[in-house]
Amino acid sequence: MTLHEQAEHIIQTAIRASLPDHAVYAALKDKNFGDGRIVLIAVGKGAWQMAKAACDLLGDRISHGVAVTKYNHVKGPLEGITCYEGGHPYPDDNSFAGTQAALDAVRDLKEEDTVLFLLSGGGSALFEQPLIDKEELTDITGQLLACGADIVEINMIRKRLSAVKGGRFAALCAPAKVYGIVLSDVLGDRLDTIASGPTCPDSSTCREAETIVEKYGLTMSEKAKACLKRETPKTLSNVENIVIGSVSMLCDAAAEECRRLGYETVILTDRLSCEAREAGVFLSNIAASHASAQKKRAFIAGGETTVHLTGKGKGGRNQELALAAAPGIAGYQNVAIFSVGSDGTDGVTDAAGGCVDGNTAGILRDKGIDIFSVLRENDSYHALAQCGGLIVTGATGTNVNDVAVVLIG
Amino acid sequence: MTLHEQAEHIIQTAIRASLPDHAVYAALKDKNFGDGRIVLIAVGKGAWQMAKAACDLLGDRISHGVAVTKYNHVKGPLEGITCYEGGHPYPDDNSFAGTQAALDAVRDLKEEDTVLFLLSGGGSALFEQPLIDKEELTDITGQLLACGADIVEINMIRKRLSAVKGGRFAALCAPAKVYGIVLSDVLGDRLDTIASGPTCPDSSTCREAETIVEKYGLTMSEKAKACLKRETPKTLSNVENIVIGSVSMLCDAAAEECRRLGYETVILTDRLSCEAREAGVFLSNIAASHASAQKKRAFIAGGETTVHLTGKGKGGRNQELALAAAPGIAGYQNVAIFSVGSDGTDGVTDAAGGCVDGNTAGILRDKGIDIFSVLRENDSYHALAQCGGLIVTGATGTNVNDVAVVLIG
Repeated sequence: MTLHEQAEHIIQTAIRASLPDHAVYAALKDKNFGDGRIVLIAVGKGAWQMAKAACDLLGDRISHGVAVTKYNHVKGPLEGITCYEGGHPYPDDNSFAGTQAALDAVRDLKEEDTVLFLLSGGGSALFEQPLIDKEELTDITGQLLACGADIVEINMIRKRLSAVKGGRFAALCAPAKVYGIVLSDVLGDRLDTIASGPTCPDSSTCREAETIVEKYGLTMSEKAKACLKRETPKTLSNVENIVIGSVSMLCDAAAEECRRLGYETVILTDRLSCEAREAGVFLSNIAASHASAQKKRAFIAGGETTVHLTGKGKGGRNQELALAAAPGIAGYQNVAIFSVGSDGTDGVTDAAGGCVDGNTAGILRDKGIDIFSVLRENDSYHALAQCGGLIVTGATGTNVNDVAVVLIG
Repeated sequence: MTLHEQAEHIIQTAIRASLPDHAVYAALKDKNFGDGRIVLIAVGKGAWQMAKAACDLLGDRISHGVAVTKYNHVKGPLEGITCYEGGHPYPDDNSFAGTQAALDAVRDLKEEDTVLFLLSGGGSALFEQPLIDKEELTDITGQLLACGADIVEINMIRKRLSAVKGGRFAALCAPAKVYGIVLSDVLGDRLDTIASGPTCPDSSTCREAETIVEKYGLTMSEKAKACLKRETPKTLSNVENIVIGSVSMLCDAAAEECRRLGYETVILTDRLSCEAREAGVFLSNIAASHASAQKKRAFIAGGETTVHLTGKGKGGRNQELALAAAPGIAGYQNVAIFSVGSDGTDGVTDAAGGCVDGNTAGILRDKGIDIFSVLRENDSYHALAQCGGLIVTGATGTNVNDVAVVLIG
């Protein structure tokens, strides 16, 4: 297999392993729910897939359930599960209706019952029941954004204005147990911040919330003020949460395939967040330093890089990363570097990412293409198209950020 | 030991191990020169130190020798060695005189004799004997720079206009053997490009040199044209060269000290060349991903990052790297990241670099200092001074670029 063929293998395997289904299978396969009922509540952009995977595995062990996801994300009926599609990123009446259905579904459960709570990205908007008028909630959120409050402060207020956030959903499920499977799409995110933590105890206090109101001079109704005085759950003895960082799954799967292909593999990070082109240079430096050692090595960095636009070309962060890595590995015949978005779409292009090797810089130079000019124009797509460097997968059915891999063959 | 104290240890040990002496000791300690004479020729910014180390080790086994270094770089007399100080980065009459003395010193040697050639950075200017008038050499170099020729093209011409470059010095030493110890200060540099390779066969051809003359329409004397027709040595059977990349020595020494302190250690690269602040973010991403694993790990990246000035503050590339790493490790009590210039001077400051940990971002925030604003102003020095984050070593006596280390305790 050439390095490019190996890259294709690694990409396909990693993406397949990152479909939401896998997280659910992995978290459920050894789980014993006892003799009680299992009620399934699935919330988020991946709710339908996660619910389907759970239904496939548990079959009629699931007594009933509700899934709330984005518009056009329900792919078919699921037996016993009522599916809702609602607004995202802003909740709408359908989000509220879905949430109400979920609350109805977990009412009057017994201690031996379990709520199987499947949470994915987007849950904050899709799973919401405000304790105040929707109009006022929108107004307060607007005040918080306008006054420059940070996300921690915003969440501290919003959790208290919601019937389900800040651990309150889990409290409503009691005395039933809650088994939460959380698929995070935010790098290094904490459980209490994913969808504002419906099944996670909240460590913030009423006093802190009131301080924020004073600090920013927020105006609100007496009803809202009363909400801020109501404490959120500090402990939840009925809950077990499993967080599966999805970009780390992507990295793990890529690493496993690299090892299967004989590479000694290091996962550098699953939360890469620097400028895409600089990450490319850094990875090319790593490759060049190890290229002469005659040892098969792979280095993996997952995450979501940033791109500061300086031009008007066509490309995406993965393509920029790959192209920027080309000069640093020029001439090394045993090196390839690729970067790919797991959703199959990198920027506004039909490519999922880019792949370069020791010949890329030379091929482009011979065609009169200057890589540094291309990067200034953010035009990585057209340059990579000239040297067989585009990775095209089509839509993949998952969206768990990106993975970049250095292969030293 | 706190993480900061460990950082101090690692820095001191790595810099000590990177003094030019060590490269010479390491390369000479098991070397058998047989019964012939040893003639020492030392060239470059580190020539005096390298010569001194060789003299200390070999004593009167050295029959005679010449050292050519920069002005103010001779620190005292060396027995049997004539020391010259010459112009750098532009050769002057003293450079030429020193080079002539070196050529005289290796004349009429026998097959059993050895020329011990100690080469360090700056050798290209300090070791030169032009085959044409100095004025014309300056003129041709000026033409090459003005027409946009790249460094490979410039060297191809200049090697042919020199009596010592492009392997010619080694050819002049024949039939004596040449043992070259090359201390490179350029990241990932090739032997034939360091000081234009006095002891390294030259792979370029006369035909290629003439193509460059035609391509750029260079004008030159008949004498210079005749030089371009004279081939450089393609093989040199009397030469053995040992290249010791000095930044890799710095990394190796840092890694060894990390391991001694119990860290499982990975050297990522010895040729880091991306933007300093982005390298800092990348390293903080690596740290954050491994911080929860409860395992002592260190990651090392040596090289020379770049800084694009966007403000008018005070700082250096190592301080920028360290400061930019602070937000990404905020809150992790078991992480420190530091970056240091081996010469003890980072930018135009009295600091050698910076060190940050999980508390740095919080300390600065409490003082009303915004790290991102500071970076925009390139004012890392003053911010690090506010949180005990400056590393101050004073002048160290070596200059082998920088090393950055992630410590996860």
